Order: sequence, then structure tokens, then C-alpha cells
Amino acid sequence: MTVPSASASASASAVTPTTPPPKVGIVGLGLIGGSLGLDLQAADWTVLGVVQNETTACRARESCLASRVDTDLAGLAECDLVLLALPLDRLLNPPAALVEALPPEAVVADVGSVKAPVLAVWETLHPRFVGAHPMAGTAAAGVEAGQRHLFRGRPWVLTPTPRTDPDAMVLVQHLAERVEAQVVKTDAAAHDSAAALISHLPILVSAALLLAIEDEPDAEVASLARELASSGFADTTRVGGGNAALGMLVTRTNRLGVLKGLRRYRARLQELELAVSAGRWTELQTALEKAGERRTSFRSCC
Amino acid sequence: MTVPSASASASASAVTPTTPPPKVGIVGLGLIGGSLGLDLQAADWTVLGVVQNETTACRARESCLASRVDTDLAGLAECDLVLLALPLDRLLNPPAALVEALPPEAVVADVGSVKAPVLAVWETLHPRFVGAHPMAGTAAAGVEAGQRHLFRGRPWVLTPTPRTDPDAMVLVQHLAERVEAQVVKTDAAAHDSAAALISHLPILVSAALLLAIEDEPDAEVASLARELASSGFADTTRVGGGNAALGMLVTRTNRLGVLKGLRRYRARLQELELAVSAGRWTELQTALEKAGERRTSFRSCC
Repeated sequence: MTVPSASASASASAVTPTTPPPKVGIVGLGLIGGSLGLDLQAADWTVLGVVQNETTACRARESCLASRVDTDLAGLAECDLVLLALPLDRLLNPPAALVEALPPEAVVADVGSVKAPVLAVWETLHPRFVGAHPMAGTAAAGVEAGQRHLFRGRPWVLTPTPRTDPDAMVLVQHLAERVEAQVVKTDAAAHDSAAALISHLPILVSAALLLAIEDEPDAEVASLARELASSGFADTTRVGGGNAALGMLVTRTNRLGVLKGLRRYRARLQELELAVSAGRWTELQTALEKAGERRTSFRSCC
Repeated sequence: MTVPSASASASASAVTPTTPPPKVGIVGLGLIGGSLGLDLQAADWTVLGVVQNETTACRARESCLASRVDTDLAGLAECDLVLLALPLDRLLNPPAALVEALPPEAVVADVGSVKAPVLAVWETLHPRFVGAHPMAGTAAAGVEAGQRHLFRGRPWVLTPTPRTDPDAMVLVQHLAERVEAQVVKTDAAAHDSAAALISHLPILVSAALLLAIEDEPDAEVASLARELASSGFADTTRVGGGNAALGMLVTRTNRLGVLKGLRRYRARLQELELAVSAGRWTELQTALEKAGERRTSFRSCC
């Protein structure tokens, strides 16, 4: 799945240890932006953080999320690399002032969880845009969420297109490696299809479980269910009970992939239901065994 | 949901601190039986463990899971209380030798995760049987799985029937409290309905997700999904990738409850799918918000 980068070694000279580190701008200092700011400063990079208002700026400064925190976009003019660590909806509808503030010679990358729609917008807005998605936990959010080593050992997906400047991609890769992430290069469509299956479909599967239990008509059973729910239930429903606005947004942005996944999911669930309904217990056990075997092939599931 | 126990205070005198602790037999020293043996011994109770073969007995003795470990059932004759910590299938089809070895005056209780079918079998086999279900984690299994404090703060469900001897129930309640569990009394049908929703339905919902991803026809996407799967995916699929034999068994034993849950689940998932399909994003976000609100009302989900 890795897209070979022919120019990687030639371009690497731009980022050898003897070169001074690039000056990085981070727009948005939430979980991803803030954590990135902390790690890059620890690696002696100079980081300019840009946030929306002075209250947030104050808290970001208190947490030392960047070398300098501004509410003004003007400082981006001095940056070699700008990371757009913005929520998906703002990334897809960027303010004109932000687009105008980005120097044309700087490398610009995002951190959005859906890639094809982001590239469709940003490749027309900036000549050196690189699509990127660091796959780090998203339970925490906001300017207090930044933490060291968030990206360590986690995948950092890069989705080059024929329009991607190879030098620009090398610089983003260098940044990802600097925070100890594992770079995975693939195309945006493959990323979005995979993300539909492992990130976006689970949100709906998990939320439907919470909603189905709400339908229990017997008040005693409903109350007992709440009292007896164990860690297994908590795990199965975690992503379905998460940030609703983000869940809606990724589903909307990755709609076709999610619908494709839902159709397959529905077919598999129906098979299990038919086995239970007909009392075909060997078939059910075989299916559950297969599910268990499959699970061990996934990263983070071992 | 708590069934008032009119005789509880009167019978409590039988188990006051001045009374010597009852002699307990535990048949089966897996996760539940072994953990119980460790905690009860720490409370100065005498525990006889009975296992199937000498190899297991040897390992149970090495781990000090009971004061004495036998492969012979004869020792149960001296016990005041016998805990049947057996897998559900053996509990529902108990060997005649086990039934014969249980003294009629002893209290007998189980730890099975489905209660009505167990009571249907055991109330005809023993006059002082008490249906019980300690809700403790089941990821580990076998004679090496026993651990201290497994039950601390966890629900220990008791399901009395009109045939339950009140003194027998008080003794089982005393044992549960001795290992710091929280006793919840309810009827078997309500327990089984609640368990279908929070324990057994999630297994199928979660397994179907693993099976659906297996159906991905694009090898690059399938491989990328395995590589990028994060902690959210690991959590959502944990119970579906667990012990297949146990998953089948609880589904078979609690079939009607599971089928009822599956029907409601399917209806809710279809609503979400229709919202995605028709692009009704406000409706989707509202449903996800509702799911998130519901989740906070469940124990272990805060």
C-alpha cells in the first residue's frame, strides 16, 4: 500500500540534521495541534501557534503549547511549514483570511480524519499542500488536551497525489518522524475506505447499541441493565457515545465509504441473527471463532 | 428492582462475626472459582477446591487457590456451602456424580451468566440452591486466571425464587459481601433480559463488525485497515473477538432475550443508515448526542 517516493532521498538533504529546523506554524492548538507543539519544542523546533481568541491563547501560553501563541495570522508569513490542526468542518470551509495568510512557498499540511474531500478543497487553495492524518486518540479535546508523546509509534498517514510537491511531502514526513510517528503513505481513496471501516462505521454500530437498549420497555430491566453494565459494555459503546458533532462530520464527509460498510455489516449481522433464530449453534460458534481470529490481525488488537 | 428479603435480618444471626466461617467447597477453579478461593482464604475461610484432573489440581495448589484441592468430590460432604464455578454447559448438564456428592443440608449456588435455565435445572436437583451471578471480567480463563479482589465493587446478582430458602440466600449474600461485591437481588427473568442487552447482544454486534471488515474486496484497503486500526476499533471489537464457545453458549441459553435485543438493534441501526443515506445530518447528530447521553447513565461508563 506504500506509495514509493522516488525523490525522497534526493530531497532528504533539505532536512538533514545540519540544516536548522524549519519554523513551524500550527493553526489550532487542540489535542493534535497542542501535542505537536509540545513535542516539536522539545526537539528544539520553533513553533508559532495560532488560535481564535485571546482566552484560548492565554491558556495555550500557560501550557507552553508553542514557542509563541498569537490570535493574529500575520506571523504565518515567516513559517516554512504550516500545520492546519483544525476541526474537519473548518478545514473544509476555511476562512479566506487563513488562506490569504499562508505564504505560497511554505509547505501546508492538515491533520483531518478524511482525506479525499480535504485534498479536493486544499489542492486548489495552496500549491504546496500535503494531505496528512496522524492516527492518535481523540477522547480528549480542547486547549487543555495537548500531551507529550501522543504520536509515538502511532501511524501518521500521508496521502500524496500527482499534484503533491515531493519536497513538501519529505518535510511533512520529517516532522512526523520527529514526533516518533510511523509514516504510512497511501492514496486518499484507500485511506478513506479503510477509515470508514475501522473508525467511522464503528461509531454507528456502537451508537445503535446504546439506542437499542434505550428502547427496552420494561423499566426494571432497563434499570438493571444500567446497574449491571460491565467493562465489556463500556468498551463496545465507547466510540458510539463519543463526540456527536465529530461523529456526524466524519460520516457526512466519508458518506459513501460508511454506507458501503453499513451494507456489509447489516448482511453479517443478519447471518448471525438467522443462526440464532434457527438454533444453528455450530454455525454461530464458527462465525464467532472467525471473528476472534480476524481480530488478532489488526494493529492495536493484540 | 431489588427484591426485599423479609427474612434477611432474622437470618443474619446465622452469619454474625462470632459464628465460625462456613466451610466452603468450590467446584471449578477457573477465573471465578480461583479468585473466590484466594479472597475467601484471605478472609480466613476454609476452602475446598474440586477440579477435574490431577494436572489442574497441581497447578491450583501451586497458586494456593484453595486450602485443599481434590479431584475427588467426596470432600464436599463436609461443606456448609458449595459454589458451582463451572462453565455454563456443564452447569446445565451436571454430572450425576456431582449432584450426588452435594450434601442436602448444604447451601449450593452457581455463578452462571444466565439464570432462568440454571434455576430450572438446579431447583429440581437440590433443595437449598441459590441462583447467583458475580459480574466480574471474563477476559482471562483457566486455573492460572485467579486473582485477588476480582469482585471488589462489582455487582453480585442473586435471583431468589419462591422456592429459594431464605437462610440459604443470606449465606450466599454473606459470601459475596465477604469478597467486597455489591449484592443486587432481582428475579431471574429480569437478570436474563438485562444480560441479553448489556452482555450477550454486544458480542454479536461486535463480532459482525469484524466479519464485515473481512468482506472488504480491495486488498489494499483491507491491509490498510489492519495497519491503521486504533484503540477505538480495539475497544469496539473486544467482546466480539472473545471466547467463541462461551459467546455461543450464552446466546443459546439466553436465545429469546438476544433475539429481542437484535430486533431492536437492527431497527435503530436502520434509522441511522437511512439518515446517512438521505443526508439528514441534523437527525444523525441528534441520534449520536442521544447515544452519548444514554451512555453516561450506565455503570462502568462514566
